[in-house]
Amino acid sequence: MTEADFIAALRRLPLHAGAHDLTDDAAHLGDLVLTKDMIVAGVHFLPSDPPTDVAWKLVATNLSDLAAKGAVPVGVMLGYPIGDDDWDRAFLSGLDAVLRAFDCPLLGGDTVKLPPDAPRILSLTALGRSAHAPRRGGARPGDSLWITGTIGDAGAGLAIAKGAAGPASLLARYRRPTPRLAEGQALARHVHAMMDVSDGLLIDAGRMAAASGLVVEIDVAAVPLSDDLQAFGHDALTAATAGDDYELLFACDTEPPVPATRIGRFVEGAGLTLLRHGHPIPLPDRLGYQH
Amino acid sequence: MTEADFIAALRRLPLHAGAHDLTDDAAHLGDLVLTKDMIVAGVHFLPSDPPTDVAWKLVATNLSDLAAKGAVPVGVMLGYPIGDDDWDRAFLSGLDAVLRAFDCPLLGGDTVKLPPDAPRILSLTALGRSAHAPRRGGARPGDSLWITGTIGDAGAGLAIAKGAAGPASLLARYRRPTPRLAEGQALARHVHAMMDVSDGLLIDAGRMAAASGLVVEIDVAAVPLSDDLQAFGHDALTAATAGDDYELLFACDTEPPVPATRIGRFVEGAGLTLLRHGHPIPLPDRLGYQH
Repeated sequence: MTEADFIAALRRLPLHAGAHDLTDDAAHLGDLVLTKDMIVAGVHFLPSDPPTDVAWKLVATNLSDLAAKGAVPVGVMLGYPIGDDDWDRAFLSGLDAVLRAFDCPLLGGDTVKLPPDAPRILSLTALGRSAHAPRRGGARPGDSLWITGTIGDAGAGLAIAKGAAGPASLLARYRRPTPRLAEGQALARHVHAMMDVSDGLLIDAGRMAAASGLVVEIDVAAVPLSDDLQAFGHDALTAATAGDDYELLFACDTEPPVPATRIGRFVEGAGLTLLRHGHPIPLPDRLGYQH
Repeated sequence: MTEADFIAALRRLPLHAGAHDLTDDAAHLGDLVLTKDMIVAGVHFLPSDPPTDVAWKLVATNLSDLAAKGAVPVGVMLGYPIGDDDWDRAFLSGLDAVLRAFDCPLLGGDTVKLPPDAPRILSLTALGRSAHAPRRGGARPGDSLWITGTIGDAGAGLAIAKGAAGPASLLARYRRPTPRLAEGQALARHVHAMMDVSDGLLIDAGRMAAASGLVVEIDVAAVPLSDDLQAFGHDALTAATAGDDYELLFACDTEPPVPATRIGRFVEGAGLTLLRHGHPIPLPDRLGYQH
């Protein structure tokens, strides 16, 4: 069963209204925003990733889902497999660092013992509060598409984590992403749609367009790339199909109140159109990370 | 690192006030009660358990934590490893049944793909609302200790699931526990302390006594056993050290408003004292399931 099949089957179960028919990354309960992730060694992180960074990334990626809702973090609940003492201690130190960095306390959780040889699996539920949580599917025809920060750095960082030569700054973008909490809070009232980029700019922008019932046109020449990424040799199309950016992608019809780059627009229709300096170019075979 | 060591280390991290210093099964956020569990094939359920029943038990055991807080279920968030089609379909059917049975909708969640040969691991976060959530550690000297229902049936059911001959009623108590939601809601304002019995009556009563700073005296002759369990041949001490009952254990100084059995009392001191018809007997080597 694919993820899409499974989610379609879940939609036939009794759903809470705040589940938004399972079309979004987060659920709502009044002004509470809830998001849940499981991450698996060898799938979502490398078994060689430092445990301090695994802790950081587990929390930061969930806080990124909250950021996309304009939420202020309230707390997290951890599901943790107790195993190797050294790994556990380092994980706890990374967890302490990330909770302090984003002013987000621990609310509770559960510990388990895994059978020997089972891959490490961690789970996190993050809760935040937002009075104006934007949806993924609210883009309107004529809206511009904007992105915070730079794209593709984490994709290069993953290559570096796997052994490529490259700067620590790019590796840090992969291992220690920064959820755009302040930007999300500032943007929430101004945007028509918002989401974080986790699987890749193109695939995620396509999801926003699909949820909004529109075409999104993206000009790859406008995609913001860091100097380090350009020196590393990744081009805009590689960057736009890499994952793990955790930047905020949003649709609005005014100048945003935070630094961001306009990379495209929404028009009537359905799908994703790529341009380079205004001229249509073919879509790459792979738009991003497919679950 | 043991679970106790790990939780002690978590207590040095930034904690939410609603985490109650991680001394309870559930966290609080205003009137919201939150609980999170991970369950692992081969550890928390048998790989041979029917997937419909695994779904039931995953939800029912979390709702049991809510019941112990007198909470009305609000919704659940599921972390699910998509794998074998038949297993997934059966799980979905069990999930549908349990959500409908306890009027608890799905709020959201996350799906993952596990590496081949990884044991199945599922995670659930359950949310409920309770205006008067009792704590585990509120028992007072002179309080009586009470238990709903009968004890030990699920322990016999586990033996039956592993191949012993025995009635379907006992197997069902192991595979399809019933969270005592209505009882918990009725009890919440009347009790000084309440928790659900998941690891075994003796070990859990000992935890309530420790959290309350008291001795709990339990008379094993008073422990309520079903006719089926007695026919199966398990005695009260076996029943009181088996897990998976999901009955409510509570301390109060009045007659409870729901059917329950008085099995002991709290007195000054620290620890667990066992009696049989009023006469002290030695503690068994094993008080219940140790994580």
